[in-house]
Amino acid sequence: MRGERLLPALAWLRGYGREEALSDTIAASIVTVMLIPQSLAYAMLAGLPPEVGLYASIAPLIAYAAFGSSRTLSVGPVAVISLMTATATAEASARTGADPVGVALALAFLSGLFLVGMGLLRLGFLANLLSHPVISGFITASAILITVSQLPALLGLSVSGHGFPELVVAISASLPALHLQTLALGLAALVLLLLARQYLRGTLRRLRLSATLADGLARAAPMAVVILSILAVQGLDLEAAGVRTVGTIPPGLPPLTLTLPSSALLLELLPAAVLISVVGFVESVSVAQTLAARQRQRIDPNQELVGLGAANLAASATGGFPVTGGFARSVVNFDAGARTPMAGVLTALGIALTALVLTPLFAALPRATLAATIIVAVLSLVDIGAIRRAFAYSRVDFAAQAGTIAVTLAAGVEPGILAGIVLSLLLHIWRTSRPHYAIVGQVPGTEHFRNVLRHAVLTSPHVLSIRIDESLYFANARFLEDLIGRLVAERPQLRHVVLMCSAVNLIDASALESLEAINERLHSAGIDLHLSEVKGPVMDRLRRTDFPGRLTGRVFLSQYDAVRALDPASLGPARPEGVREGAPQSG
Amino acid sequence: MRGERLLPALAWLRGYGREEALSDTIAASIVTVMLIPQSLAYAMLAGLPPEVGLYASIAPLIAYAAFGSSRTLSVGPVAVISLMTATATAEASARTGADPVGVALALAFLSGLFLVGMGLLRLGFLANLLSHPVISGFITASAILITVSQLPALLGLSVSGHGFPELVVAISASLPALHLQTLALGLAALVLLLLARQYLRGTLRRLRLSATLADGLARAAPMAVVILSILAVQGLDLEAAGVRTVGTIPPGLPPLTLTLPSSALLLELLPAAVLISVVGFVESVSVAQTLAARQRQRIDPNQELVGLGAANLAASATGGFPVTGGFARSVVNFDAGARTPMAGVLTALGIALTALVLTPLFAALPRATLAATIIVAVLSLVDIGAIRRAFAYSRVDFAAQAGTIAVTLAAGVEPGILAGIVLSLLLHIWRTSRPHYAIVGQVPGTEHFRNVLRHAVLTSPHVLSIRIDESLYFANARFLEDLIGRLVAERPQLRHVVLMCSAVNLIDASALESLEAINERLHSAGIDLHLSEVKGPVMDRLRRTDFPGRLTGRVFLSQYDAVRALDPASLGPARPEGVREGAPQSG
Repeated sequence: MRGERLLPALAWLRGYGREEALSDTIAASIVTVMLIPQSLAYAMLAGLPPEVGLYASIAPLIAYAAFGSSRTLSVGPVAVISLMTATATAEASARTGADPVGVALALAFLSGLFLVGMGLLRLGFLANLLSHPVISGFITASAILITVSQLPALLGLSVSGHGFPELVVAISASLPALHLQTLALGLAALVLLLLARQYLRGTLRRLRLSATLADGLARAAPMAVVILSILAVQGLDLEAAGVRTVGTIPPGLPPLTLTLPSSALLLELLPAAVLISVVGFVESVSVAQTLAARQRQRIDPNQELVGLGAANLAASATGGFPVTGGFARSVVNFDAGARTPMAGVLTALGIALTALVLTPLFAALPRATLAATIIVAVLSLVDIGAIRRAFAYSRVDFAAQAGTIAVTLAAGVEPGILAGIVLSLLLHIWRTSRPHYAIVGQVPGTEHFRNVLRHAVLTSPHVLSIRIDESLYFANARFLEDLIGRLVAERPQLRHVVLMCSAVNLIDASALESLEAINERLHSAGIDLHLSEVKGPVMDRLRRTDFPGRLTGRVFLSQYDAVRALDPASLGPARPEGVREGAPQSG
Repeated sequence: MRGERLLPALAWLRGYGREEALSDTIAASIVTVMLIPQSLAYAMLAGLPPEVGLYASIAPLIAYAAFGSSRTLSVGPVAVISLMTATATAEASARTGADPVGVALALAFLSGLFLVGMGLLRLGFLANLLSHPVISGFITASAILITVSQLPALLGLSVSGHGFPELVVAISASLPALHLQTLALGLAALVLLLLARQYLRGTLRRLRLSATLADGLARAAPMAVVILSILAVQGLDLEAAGVRTVGTIPPGLPPLTLTLPSSALLLELLPAAVLISVVGFVESVSVAQTLAARQRQRIDPNQELVGLGAANLAASATGGFPVTGGFARSVVNFDAGARTPMAGVLTALGIALTALVLTPLFAALPRATLAATIIVAVLSLVDIGAIRRAFAYSRVDFAAQAGTIAVTLAAGVEPGILAGIVLSLLLHIWRTSRPHYAIVGQVPGTEHFRNVLRHAVLTSPHVLSIRIDESLYFANARFLEDLIGRLVAERPQLRHVVLMCSAVNLIDASALESLEAINERLHSAGIDLHLSEVKGPVMDRLRRTDFPGRLTGRVFLSQYDAVRALDPASLGPARPEGVREGAPQSG
């Protein structure tokens, strides 16, 4: 069992048989055909030679199959991580003069180390720093950035640059120089891909093909567009007309790249590697959870960290670049019937075969087709609905999301994701720094105490009962001091303050000190402080301190007990005992 | 009334009479005598000429009297802020070559702008980022740093440097060179000050002096030690023997320093100014709240920001350095009977008179005496009890505190306070990322549902009831997905999951998306998701979305209703209706 915890593959390999092998092989074939154009395209997006994309789709898949906890997650290059790699690689190359491929390897190495480290130290909770609105805002902004970054290749423009504002300006300025043949090819590929995605499966079904076959063919559409583009380039001699192609891809298996990057480069890349790791993990784990749930399986987030870390270490050792679990390919893998991670291993074999023998075929592949592939892939990432929903649901969440989008577009991916994290934290602190509270009074004839603003209740001029609807911790400790200071200053007749703690799940050391300060301040003003309805675990913790002894008042089991002890005259007539207890009535 | 909100002084000036004037004058005299040596000493601690300390105790007091909301807070130079000023000034001077006095003025200017801005934008909540354990750890570490920084002056060593490790090394290395006359003078001052603080008031009371007089004399002890040291230096010609003195202090009122610092310097100082402002505000506001509560007055934190900001702007315009509300002097002011901020204005006049005519007397004041004054003042800031309490109460709070102390001592004040903020936030996220939860079942014969681990309760194999004891927000949204995924994977017979939300005060957009994901995942596994006991405000917010419509299950008013609807057979016999309603029993 211990072996299985370290190497989850041991669990599923034990029961592996013919049936699983057949399902996995079918799924792997479909994913392979889908992955070849994507691998080439995402390498281009990352600013790296096309073969790097193939290499990143071989060894990492095998490493994840051995160490990952999801049965159907498909890892490899993905759009957002490729964009983040492009930014980090371009900056580090410019500053250190290092070769981009070497920088990408170092990035995968660092990211792998960081992910494995987080997994072993069980630090998966750090991914919680990225709230859903921040992540969805970041991905939407990244998709826009990616689309704009692919426009030059689609339009046949020679434009370089990374920031969104500078790219938009540069593209607009060089629009007159657009290359018509490239544009025609790119637009044709774009339209074909969009049509295939929208209608192909339905059309094939209407032609009475089986669902499986229709699905498989629809998924091979990008590969078909790739082949058609290559044929067009070769048939019409478009290369001579100035259409830029991928060019010669050196055939062969991935190289072993085991030299350790320089420590100066690693230090330079550390922040980018951390962000790439966290974003990749968050994306991947949510895909893995969705697929696992469909079969009542589960994934272990800390084991996922180890699996993704192993995949990135494998990428760095075999000429690749940072990878993570991809949404589209994992869903395809799942829908095509993948049963175990062996499907990933078989996909890796398919890509390896491609790298060995098929690369000469891709030399004439136009870059405009790859750009179209990328644009169609990332269009589905733009989630305007998520922005509208965040706006309607909570202005706080919307503010974090809008800030993330604005900073990502204006300043780039790393400042964008950091701004999202900082904004979420600050807004959370702000939101919980002013918790909901209610001054409560007795609902006549009951032992219930409710908000004086919403119910006709009985209160006492000598006893102030306050219910706080939030855990008490450092962000709202001072709020409590202010609140009680203000309420007491308004009530000259006051003798007792009762804090009703029924909604308090935690009192941290800051809140405890605030309670002590409140207790002392009230004491010096001649007022006693009492607590009521303190939850068990909270009271256990308070008992470890001398606070209960220093409290000028008492800790009551219920708010009713508190007011009955402190100012019984203020209470309305209670329900007669006989009725409440269900005793027989006379007569 | 609007005028009073902008200028709180208008409120107390209206009723100002003879009686208040007398009380304020007595208090101001005592505080002035206490403040003169402190002002000189804290200027030395900040690495500035002594007159700067006097200047910082004149105009800022008048500005605070006009704009502050506390009646008895006494502002001026304080130990921790002086240390932070020393660090920031030394670093900026070294980097930009600017004059330390000019840098300190710029720091006060920026800090003033920032405080006023926070007050006007009502951003006082930002101070909540500093938890109590972090602040107390920071102050304890600062007190240790300050003590060590004063050792060279006390021992007559020529040592410079700022970091704790380098200072300790440098002092140890130059110990053989210590100056015996300086040491004798410093130790004598230290012992006298400690004895006076510990015993003087009691002794004077035993000599049948009135409490007020005994108090006043005890508070004048530092002034007496200053005078004694000056007499010793002059009588024994210690200056010729090598005892370092304060030297000539130019007499006169504070200069007008209205030139705007360069924007490069301001940018350089911004981080330090923000930290100085926040630390100063947090310290000051807690003193102000404590004193206000004693008289059932209250302070307005946002108005306090404006008051402290005005004080710092005044300091920057009149040759001073960053100031804030001091604990010791405010308590003295309060105890000596100050009734209104006029006491602060009168104190400012006293210090102004000193600056005008008394400065020649201080030329022979030995620096060792000032060092002793500082050390005695900061000793009371070391709060070992707070560390012990944090350790006993909560390991999480202790970790944040210990981290703050360690980083402050090892790397300095700015990294220290930043480490404290980041650690508190991360630890809070970590703590709330794994909220307490319970699987609940019916307590037989009741409608109560309690933890299956603590109570003998009835559960159903088809219905899983989970109570989450925390608000649902981005930090624990994924926890919920993991939790439900795990629990469902363990229960093949499950048909329904009911989330009991009685302790959920908030569901943010991340948690809503997690609930939607859980809903869909459960649906694809053939399980319905239900909610129960959702609080009113939480339900109001959910109704703004399409979540209630998409929920595969229902929202029940109570957990009992839920289980009665979903699996009535699993419920134990309910209490007979008759008994519950108190109807007469037969017989």
